[in-house]
Amino acid sequence: MKVVSENRCFGGAQTVCAHRSDSCGTEMTFAIYLPPQAESARVPVLWYLSGLTCTHENAMTKGGFQAHAARHGVALVFPDTSPRGAGVADDQAYDLGQGAGFYVNATRDPWRANYQMYDYVLSELRGIVTDNFPVIDRHGITGHSMGGHGALTLALRNPELFDSVSAFAPIANPTRSDWGRKQLSEYLGDDESTWSCHDSSILLEEHGWKGDILIDQGADDQFFDLLRPEALAQVMARRRQSGLFRMQAGYDHSYYFVSTFAGEHVDWHATRLNKATSGPG
Amino acid sequence: MKVVSENRCFGGAQTVCAHRSDSCGTEMTFAIYLPPQAESARVPVLWYLSGLTCTHENAMTKGGFQAHAARHGVALVFPDTSPRGAGVADDQAYDLGQGAGFYVNATRDPWRANYQMYDYVLSELRGIVTDNFPVIDRHGITGHSMGGHGALTLALRNPELFDSVSAFAPIANPTRSDWGRKQLSEYLGDDESTWSCHDSSILLEEHGWKGDILIDQGADDQFFDLLRPEALAQVMARRRQSGLFRMQAGYDHSYYFVSTFAGEHVDWHATRLNKATSGPG
Repeated sequence: MKVVSENRCFGGAQTVCAHRSDSCGTEMTFAIYLPPQAESARVPVLWYLSGLTCTHENAMTKGGFQAHAARHGVALVFPDTSPRGAGVADDQAYDLGQGAGFYVNATRDPWRANYQMYDYVLSELRGIVTDNFPVIDRHGITGHSMGGHGALTLALRNPELFDSVSAFAPIANPTRSDWGRKQLSEYLGDDESTWSCHDSSILLEEHGWKGDILIDQGADDQFFDLLRPEALAQVMARRRQSGLFRMQAGYDHSYYFVSTFAGEHVDWHATRLNKATSGPG
Repeated sequence: MKVVSENRCFGGAQTVCAHRSDSCGTEMTFAIYLPPQAESARVPVLWYLSGLTCTHENAMTKGGFQAHAARHGVALVFPDTSPRGAGVADDQAYDLGQGAGFYVNATRDPWRANYQMYDYVLSELRGIVTDNFPVIDRHGITGHSMGGHGALTLALRNPELFDSVSAFAPIANPTRSDWGRKQLSEYLGDDESTWSCHDSSILLEEHGWKGDILIDQGADDQFFDLLRPEALAQVMARRRQSGLFRMQAGYDHSYYFVSTFAGEHVDWHATRLNKATSGPG
C-alpha cells in the first residue's frame, strides 16, 4: 500500500492510498480520514460508498464529512466505485463498467475478471483498513445513490459486520429500475433469482435490520423515478422497521443535498457506534 | 443574466449565473449562495475570491462555506478568477492569463482588452448582485491564495465598500514574489510604481485598515516562500493593526485547509456584518 497524498483537515489527516487488490486484480485507490482523536486512541469507522461516475474523491472533497467526523472521533473510508485501468472491461455508458461497479461480484464475462466490488469493500478493504490504521471493530456504513444501494445491501446481508446504516437517495429497488436491471443482467446474467440479494427493498422485506435505519431523499431529485424510494419506504413501513425515512423538500440529487445532511448522518452513526463500544458486550 | 444551475443547499439556494460583462468584454460566470434567511429578509454579503487555476466552482463545491452562511444568514458570492474563452488572451503557464487574473485592471496588450478583474469584481459584479438578489449594502470579503491577495487589496483600497476582511494563505507580498512580479509586469508593465497598490503588505503599511483583520496561514503550506506571509505579519505587528494572524500547524495550501477554517471566517465576518447593520449609522 502506498500513500498518494495526505492533507491536514479539521485537526486530523485526509489520506489517499493505492494498493494492489487481490479481489479486483488491479490497483485500487481509496481515501481515509482519521480524526484528531485517532492520534491517541483507536476509533470506529464510517464507510461512505459513492454513486455512479464517482471515484474515492468526490465525497472526500465535496461532502463535508470530515468536519463532523472530527467532532465525533470517527474515521471515514471512501472506496472507489469500480476497478479501473486500461486492461479493465468498460462500456461507453456512464452507468456500466468503470465508475459503476454496483457493489456486486460479477459472474459474467467480461466483467468477472475485475468487477468484484462486493468482496473488495466488504472483505479486502476492510482488512486493509483494520490492519493499517488505528480503528476498532465498529463499523457504520452509508452512501449516496448507487453507493446508498451498496451501503444498504452490504449491511442488510452482513448485520454482524455493521453496527449502523444510513443512505442518501439510494437506488432502492434496482431489480425494478433501469438503474439496476441493465447492470445486474450484465454483471450477473439473466437469472433474476441471483439479483434479489442486491436489492435493498427485497432484502429488508426478507430480513429486516437489527437496529434503526436513516434514509434521506430529496423531493426534487431528478432521478426519483430511477431510485424508486417509494419501494423502500413501503417496506420500511410494512415491516415496522425502526428508523427514519425523510423526504427533504426542495433538494435534488447533488452533493449540495448530501453535504446539507452529512452532519446529521455522521451524528446518527457516531451515536450508534459509540453506544456499541460502551455496551457490556 | 441567465441562471446556469440552482441547487437547494442547507435550506437556501446555491445558484450559478452567467452574464455578459462590460468590464471584461466577455461572458462571465459567478456563483451566489442565498441562505434560508434571504427568503424573508435582505442579507449581508460575503465575497470569496479564489486562487490560481480556480473558477467560481472550486470553493463553491469544496470549501463548505454554505453550512456556515446558512447558520448566520449571510449570502456568499464566488466570482471567477479571470475572463475566459477562445478569444481571450492566455498563456501556457498556469499562473498567467486565464485562471490567473490577479484582481487587477490590465493596462498592457494583449491583456487589457479583457483582464479587468479589479473593476469587474469591485463594481460590475457588485452592482449585479445588489440589483438582482435580496442583499443589503454590507459586504465582507475573503479569499484564498491569489484570492486572499484580491480580498486584501480590494478591501484595503476601498474601505468604504467593505465592512470586514479576512484571508486564507494570501499572496501577501506579490511585488517581491514570483507569484506577482511576473503577472504584474505582464498586466501592468515594468513601471513598478504601478504595482504597489496591488500589494497588501504595502497597502497595509501605508493605509492600515479601519477594523480588525483575520489571516490564516498553514505552517506546512507548500507555497510558503511564494506567499511571503512574513511580510504581512511584520506589517500587521509594526502598524499595531487590530486583528489575528494565525499560523496553523500541519496545514498545507489545499481546500482541506480552507474548509477546516471556513466556519471561523464566516463567524468572523457575520459578527462584523451584523454589528454594522445594527449600529446607529
